[in-house]
Amino acid sequence: MIYRKLKILSREDIFSQKPEWRNPGYSRYFAMYSSVFGGVVTDPSLMVLPLDDHMVHRGDGIFEAFKCVNGYIYNLDAHLARLQKSAELISLKLPFSLSTIKQIIIETVATGGVKDCMVRVFVSRGIGGFDCAPRECKESNLYIIVLEPWSAPEHFYTKGVSAITSKIPAKPSFFAQVKSCNYLPNVLVEMEAEKNKVDFGIMLDEEGYLTEGATENVAIVTKEKKFVYPTFSHMLKGTSLLRGVELTKELIKMGILKGISQRNISREEAYESSEMLIFGTGPNVLPVVEYDGNKIGTGKPGDVFHMLSRLFQRDITENKKVLTPVFKEEEKL
Amino acid sequence: MIYRKLKILSREDIFSQKPEWRNPGYSRYFAMYSSVFGGVVTDPSLMVLPLDDHMVHRGDGIFEAFKCVNGYIYNLDAHLARLQKSAELISLKLPFSLSTIKQIIIETVATGGVKDCMVRVFVSRGIGGFDCAPRECKESNLYIIVLEPWSAPEHFYTKGVSAITSKIPAKPSFFAQVKSCNYLPNVLVEMEAEKNKVDFGIMLDEEGYLTEGATENVAIVTKEKKFVYPTFSHMLKGTSLLRGVELTKELIKMGILKGISQRNISREEAYESSEMLIFGTGPNVLPVVEYDGNKIGTGKPGDVFHMLSRLFQRDITENKKVLTPVFKEEEKL
Repeated sequence: MIYRKLKILSREDIFSQKPEWRNPGYSRYFAMYSSVFGGVVTDPSLMVLPLDDHMVHRGDGIFEAFKCVNGYIYNLDAHLARLQKSAELISLKLPFSLSTIKQIIIETVATGGVKDCMVRVFVSRGIGGFDCAPRECKESNLYIIVLEPWSAPEHFYTKGVSAITSKIPAKPSFFAQVKSCNYLPNVLVEMEAEKNKVDFGIMLDEEGYLTEGATENVAIVTKEKKFVYPTFSHMLKGTSLLRGVELTKELIKMGILKGISQRNISREEAYESSEMLIFGTGPNVLPVVEYDGNKIGTGKPGDVFHMLSRLFQRDITENKKVLTPVFKEEEKL
Repeated sequence: MIYRKLKILSREDIFSQKPEWRNPGYSRYFAMYSSVFGGVVTDPSLMVLPLDDHMVHRGDGIFEAFKCVNGYIYNLDAHLARLQKSAELISLKLPFSLSTIKQIIIETVATGGVKDCMVRVFVSRGIGGFDCAPRECKESNLYIIVLEPWSAPEHFYTKGVSAITSKIPAKPSFFAQVKSCNYLPNVLVEMEAEKNKVDFGIMLDEEGYLTEGATENVAIVTKEKKFVYPTFSHMLKGTSLLRGVELTKELIKMGILKGISQRNISREEAYESSEMLIFGTGPNVLPVVEYDGNKIGTGKPGDVFHMLSRLFQRDITENKKVLTPVFKEEEKL
């Protein structure tokens, strides 16, 4: 980009039919709802928000990300409940009732017209100048974006993934529990992992126990066949992890696992585990086969991973309790 | 705001000459530069940015705020140096050289056409989908907004301000030193102060020492006439505080103060101080007359405050070393 004497731009300069700045090389976007504009846009160049929304310049906003598979949104109510919890924690009044937000989400996905997509929902503190204090914001805003589905590289599932312990410390307890737009620590975890040529980084709490990755949770399967996941004191209540815990109960009924517990996990215990798992909205569940250079278990994706992976597939395609239809019930909106 | 069946909006719906959503009740904006659009806009409804800029959804951006007084930008080089430092800390490549950014700032303020204004500069990780990792962002972006000047209420200067110790802990050391768009802790400090009916909140580090306010620095004058300010281990290097330290040296030459030191300050020491001061780009310097319910000094704005306030006024209007002309040298750009 080369600096030139500044030009004063008109509306036509910016929002021409195919603006240069909306490079088509990025993700495909199908629809965006904005409470600022009071409706949905499908032209990607209109997927903008005011610079003076406090979410932009202070990170004063919260979000959720979930997927729509074959026309059904997976685990929507869990995401909405967490959105409400995040809002409460930072005293952010939602712009609509939770049921209205749900309706708007469904209708925005329907407008996008694509049965397999990712959905991201943001609630911002709102438009209101550039101060830090929210008192200048008159009302919070809702933004929803519907974009192409995310998929992990195939070898993540077939060969497993690598992880390191991040040098970035876990967020202070309170802030770790709000899914806010303050993700700079997480961003640095991602950059550190990339620099170290591994797939994921895992943050530790002050006492050196495992917390979470940049945008995913972790768990281990001990040699005694127990499924163990960290306490929520320094991490987000991952919706995929919690579904994973539910699905793990089936493995216990089947006699494959012997128990589930939520407690502190040290790095050393993870190194010695028979399986290490990553949970996230995008990939569902992934097998960690190398952590801090140590081979985990056999060094290959393990049985619990394979079984949980299949159970997730079934959950996402068949479990009506966690599936919200987008297209079939459109007329009911 | 009432939810209605969603409408698909056109460019004309959103950016009509006087769009409803751009409520004129907020701050007045004079100009905005955007490297995304490649120029300046003066119509506030065009002061927007793409939702998929990582600054929006991850707080992955940095910023600076400074003022232009009577056509001269105050302390610009110090702000630019800090912008560069913040960028380095989070491995963010600036979209232009620092000297080009300076040129663009000057020209954007000139385009705004107002001699007294606030200027806010943002560098974002850039447009690139909705992941957390910056690798999907092709280039960083620069946004500059020129808006009406900020002024503290008159009684802040004449009667002094009140402060409390915030329950929100100071940011971890590394993050406290990056002026990033991750300001949620600061936002909560502001809300806490408002709830407690005081003007400012001050965060403590893990050991209980004073760090900084939501968007300002603090210092004290001891009974022994020493000017003391906290170490930079858990706070931002405030440009106004550092100017204040320079100006304080004049008070030492005049024999009014006996020394300057940068060291840990406990709450108790602040309670016992003869003056407590707040430094910030908006107000320059303010006298704290009540802290955690304790009267500070005489309970009225003190001599050091009055003298520093006058020195700041002189600095801002006369000290060519820290003043960047916007309008007179416009032809040189």
